[in-house]
Amino acid sequence: MDTQTVIAAASIISAGLTIAIGSIGPALGEGRALAQALNAIAQQPDEANTITRTLFVGLAMVESTAIYCFVVSMILIFANPFWNFFLEAAATQ
Amino acid sequence: MDTQTVIAAASIISAGLTIAIGSIGPALGEGRALAQALNAIAQQPDEANTITRTLFVGLAMVESTAIYCFVVSMILIFANPFWNFFLEAAATQ
Amino acid sequence: MDTQTVIAAASIISAGLTIAIGSIGPALGEGRALAQALNAIAQQPDEANTITRTLFVGLAMVESTAIYCFVVSMILIFANPFWNFFLEAAATQ
Amino acid sequence: MDTQTVIAAASIISAGLTIAIGSIGPALGEGRALAQALNAIAQQPDEANTITRTLFVGLAMVESTAIYCFVVSMILIFANPFWNFFLEAAATQ
Amino acid sequence: MDTQTVIAAASIISAGLTIAIGSIGPALGEGRALAQALNAIAQQPDEANTITRTLFVGLAMVESTAIYCFVVSMILIFANPFWNFFLEAAATQ
Amino acid sequence: MDTQTVIAAASIISAGLTIAIGSIGPALGEGRALAQALNAIAQQPDEANTITRTLFVGLAMVESTAIYCFVVSMILIFANPFWNFFLEAAATQ
Amino acid sequence: MDTQTVIAAASIISAGLTIAIGSIGPALGEGRALAQALNAIAQQPDEANTITRTLFVGLAMVESTAIYCFVVSMILIFANPFWNFFLEAAATQ
Amino acid sequence: MDTQTVIAAASIISAGLTIAIGSIGPALGEGRALAQALNAIAQQPDEANTITRTLFVGLAMVESTAIYCFVVSMILIFANPFWNFFLEAAATQ
Amino acid sequence: MDTQTVIAAASIISAGLTIAIGSIGPALGEGRALAQALNAIAQQPDEANTITRTLFVGLAMVESTAIYCFVVSMILIFANPFWNFFLEAAATQ
Amino acid sequence: MDTQTVIAAASIISAGLTIAIGSIGPALGEGRALAQALNAIAQQPDEANTITRTLFVGLAMVESTAIYCFVVSMILIFANPFWNFFLEAAATQ
Amino acid sequence: MDTQTVIAAASIISAGLTIAIGSIGPALGEGRALAQALNAIAQQPDEANTITRTLFVGLAMVESTAIYCFVVSMILIFANPFWNFFLEAAATQ
Amino acid sequence: MDTQTVIAAASIISAGLTIAIGSIGPALGEGRALAQALNAIAQQPDEANTITRTLFVGLAMVESTAIYCFVVSMILIFANPFWNFFLEAAATQ
Amino acid sequence: MDTQTVIAAASIISAGLTIAIGSIGPALGEGRALAQALNAIAQQPDEANTITRTLFVGLAMVESTAIYCFVVSMILIFANPFWNFFLEAAATQ
Amino acid sequence: MDTQTVIAAASIISAGLTIAIGSIGPALGEGRALAQALNAIAQQPDEANTITRTLFVGLAMVESTAIYCFVVSMILIFANPFWNFFLEAAATQ
Repeated sequence: MDTQTVIAAASIISAGLTIAIGSIGPALGEGRALAQALNAIAQQPDEANTITRTLFVGLAMVESTAIYCFVVSMILIFANPFWNFFLEAAATQ
Repeated sequence: MDTQTVIAAASIISAGLTIAIGSIGPALGEGRALAQALNAIAQQPDEANTITRTLFVGLAMVESTAIYCFVVSMILIFANPFWNFFLEAAATQ
Repeated sequence: MDTQTVIAAASIISAGLTIAIGSIGPALGEGRALAQALNAIAQQPDEANTITRTLFVGLAMVESTAIYCFVVSMILIFANPFWNFFLEAAATQ
Repeated sequence: MDTQTVIAAASIISAGLTIAIGSIGPALGEGRALAQALNAIAQQPDEANTITRTLFVGLAMVESTAIYCFVVSMILIFANPFWNFFLEAAATQ
Repeated sequence: MDTQTVIAAASIISAGLTIAIGSIGPALGEGRALAQALNAIAQQPDEANTITRTLFVGLAMVESTAIYCFVVSMILIFANPFWNFFLEAAATQ
Repeated sequence: MDTQTVIAAASIISAGLTIAIGSIGPALGEGRALAQALNAIAQQPDEANTITRTLFVGLAMVESTAIYCFVVSMILIFANPFWNFFLEAAATQ
Repeated sequence: MDTQTVIAAASIISAGLTIAIGSIGPALGEGRALAQALNAIAQQPDEANTITRTLFVGLAMVESTAIYCFVVSMILIFANPFWNFFLEAAATQ
Repeated sequence: MDTQTVIAAASIISAGLTIAIGSIGPALGEGRALAQALNAIAQQPDEANTITRTLFVGLAMVESTAIYCFVVSMILIFANPFWNFFLEAAATQ
Repeated sequence: MDTQTVIAAASIISAGLTIAIGSIGPALGEGRALAQALNAIAQQPDEANTITRTLFVGLAMVESTAIYCFVVSMILIFANPFWNFFLEAAATQ
Repeated sequence: MDTQTVIAAASIISAGLTIAIGSIGPALGEGRALAQALNAIAQQPDEANTITRTLFVGLAMVESTAIYCFVVSMILIFANPFWNFFLEAAATQ
Repeated sequence: MDTQTVIAAASIISAGLTIAIGSIGPALGEGRALAQALNAIAQQPDEANTITRTLFVGLAMVESTAIYCFVVSMILIFANPFWNFFLEAAATQ
Repeated sequence: MDTQTVIAAASIISAGLTIAIGSIGPALGEGRALAQALNAIAQQPDEANTITRTLFVGLAMVESTAIYCFVVSMILIFANPFWNFFLEAAATQ
Repeated sequence: MDTQTVIAAASIISAGLTIAIGSIGPALGEGRALAQALNAIAQQPDEANTITRTLFVGLAMVESTAIYCFVVSMILIFANPFWNFFLEAAATQ
Repeated sequence: MDTQTVIAAASIISAGLTIAIGSIGPALGEGRALAQALNAIAQQPDEANTITRTLFVGLAMVESTAIYCFVVSMILIFANPFWNFFLEAAATQ
């Protein structure tokens, strides 16, 4: 296998696994927080506004770790500096 | 194996594993939130509207991590930039 | 092994594992939500309609992640773009 | 090993693992829902009809993920497009 | 190794693992449902008939996933289409 | 290694693992159901007959998955069609 | 390695692992049932006879899965049909 | 490596792993039953005799699975029929 | 493979796995803390300010471990000193 | 590697793993029983004698599985029949 | 591969895995402590100061283990003594 | 690699893993028993003497499994009979 | 690869994994103790001093196991006796 | 690789893994005991002295298993008898 093939294959596999593994934690964490939020609303309907607001701010923080994974995955597919380097190297060769 | 075969095989395996692994977390998280929502409705039937609304907004956020995986999986199958590159390279050769 | 064999074998294995692994999460999540729904009906029989309706809308969202896996699995078997490419390549050769 | 052997072996192993792994989740999920249904009937015997009806509709949805795996497993054994292709290729050779 | 040996070895290993892995989920799920059924009978002896009937209908659905695995395992041993193909191929050779 | 050795080794290993892995689920499931049955008898001694009868009918269903594994294991050792085929092939050679 | 060595090594390793893995489930299941039986006797000393009798009948069923593994393990060591075949084959050679 | 070395190495590794893996289940199961027995004695000191007797009969059944493993391990070390066969084969050679 | 290819492939795979594995812990930890926070607000609505403030300061500390992983991942992609070294070495060659 | 080296290396690794893996179960089981015993003494100080006596008899049975592993480990190191055989074989050569 | 490539690749992979694996424990531990802190504040609002102070001192200790991993990861990337040695060795060669 | 190197490497790795794996069970078991002992003292301060005495006798039994591992580890490093044999063999050669 | 490369690569990988794996246990253990400490303060605010003092002394003992790992990791990077030996050996060569 | 390199690499990897794996159990066990101790102090402040004394004696026993691992790790690095042997062998060669 030549250089470009190795880099492309590594990028494809790595991009897929990154977002796949990286979605397990946030999804479970958000599911847990969401479940507790609905429980809290049922216990204190009068505080639904405070609970919902805190929930979504918190979910945004949990989601951020999934975003990190998605960003890295996108970088590996569409803006991979190593891939660009080898393309330029091959072009100037 | 030539270059195209490696890229195609890596894309096929990576696309399948991405959505397969990536569906475990969201499905479990949504199931947990949904279970708690039904419990909350049973405890506070009068707040069913607030609970249901919060549930579906929250589920959308959890689902988003599954969407990320599905998007990456689709990109790897139908809009794979590495595959396109090697196709063009082979065409211009 | 020639190119077509590699792609076919990778597609077969990947299609099977995708739906197999991808069915674990949704099945467990739906089972949990369903179990809680039955519990909620037993606690609040008067709200059975609201609970059942919320349950099935929620189950549809959980099921969606299994659908993603099934769609990817079917694409890999019946509409695999990489396979089609190599078939055309072999036909025009 | 020639092409047909590889495809056949991959199909056999993949078909077996697909239904084997794919039966873990639905069986556990259905068992949990069934257990809770019996508990709910014991708590609210008067709602046995509603509970049983919701249970079987829900079990059908959980079972659907096992059906997906069974369908893919059957396709891989009896209607495998890759296998059919190589058989035709060998016949026309 | 020649073709028949590979197919036979793959079928043997796959058949064994299919039913072995496939029996874990149903056995645990049925055990859980059965345990809860006995608990429910102890709580509501008057509903023993309803509980027992629902139990066995539900157990049949859980058992169905084990049946799928057993069917696939038997097909791989006694009605394996790939094996039959290679036997005919060897016979007509 | 010649053909017969491969088939024999695969059958031996597969037969052992099939019953070994296949006994984990039923044993745990039966243990759980049995434990709950004893608990139920202690709570409702008057229903001991109903509980015990339901228990043994249920245990038979759980045991059935272990029986499947045992049957497959015995088939692989004593009535292995692949092994018989190669023996006949070697005898007629 | 010649044929007899492969068969003997596979039998030795398989026999050991079969009973080793196969003893995990029954031992845990029996331990759980036994623990609950002692608890039930402490709660209902008057029903000690019924509980003890049900316990030992149930333990026998759980133990049966361990017996299956032990039988397969013994067959593989002392009555291995594959081993006997190769011994006869070597003797008549 | 010659035949005797392979058989000896397989026997050594298999004997060790058999008793090592096989001691996990019984030890945990016995520990659980013992813990519950002490709890039961503390709740019903008057039934200490019945509890202790049932405990030791039950422990003997759980221990039996460990004994199976120990027996297989000893057979593999001191009465290994495969090893004896090769020793005789080497002696008569 | 030449030096640059190895370094690039190692960087791509390592960057992806770092943020993927590194997002599991923080996401689960934040989800747990967020869930408890909503529960605490429902119990003590008057202390919502204190709880929310402590929550976000604490979430920042948990998030810091995800940030570490993201920083290392970014360094490996965009500021990798080993990659820069080999580029300079290749440029001055 | 010659015969003696293989046997010695297998014995060393197997002896270490046997006692290492074999100490997990008994240690956890004894810890659980011991914890419950202390709890039982705190609940029923008057039965401390009965509890302590039952505890130590039971611990001896749990310890027995660790003893089995230790015995096998010692046999593999100091009284290994396979090792002795090869030593004699080498001496008489 | 030459020496520098091996060291660089090992450093890259090791640095990534160190902080990735090392962030799981601290993140889960901090999340647990933070969750309990919010619970404690809700139970004893008057002690919010003491609880918050103890929380942050304790979080600092838990965070320290993540810091260790981050420090080792940074050393492996930016101050790797082995890498520096080989650079000097290559420079003086 | 010559004989001595293999034996030494196997002894080093085996000695380390033996005590490492072997310390997990006893440490967790002792921690559990110790935790329960402190709880028991808090419930029955008057029985602190009995509890503490039973605790330390029991801890000694749990510790014994760790001691077994430590002894085997020390034997493998400092009194390894296989190593001594090869040293003597090399000396008398 | 020459000697120095092997030692350096082994040291780098080992140093990273040592602190990474070694931080999981202490972080989880400290998080658990810290969580319980905050709970205890909320229950007994008057004993906050005793609880906090015991907490930090105990955390120091738990932290000690992380320190051991950090020390070994640092030794492997900066004071590795094997590395120093080979450096001297290379220098005097 | 020559003999010294193998021994050194095995010692480095083994020393790191020994203390890393060996710190998981003690850290979790100590954390659990410490958490319960703080809980016990909050329940029985008057017994704080007895509880604290029993805690630290017990922690010392749990810590001992970590000490064993640390001692073995140090021996493998600084007083490795196998390493010393090969050094002497090389010196006298």
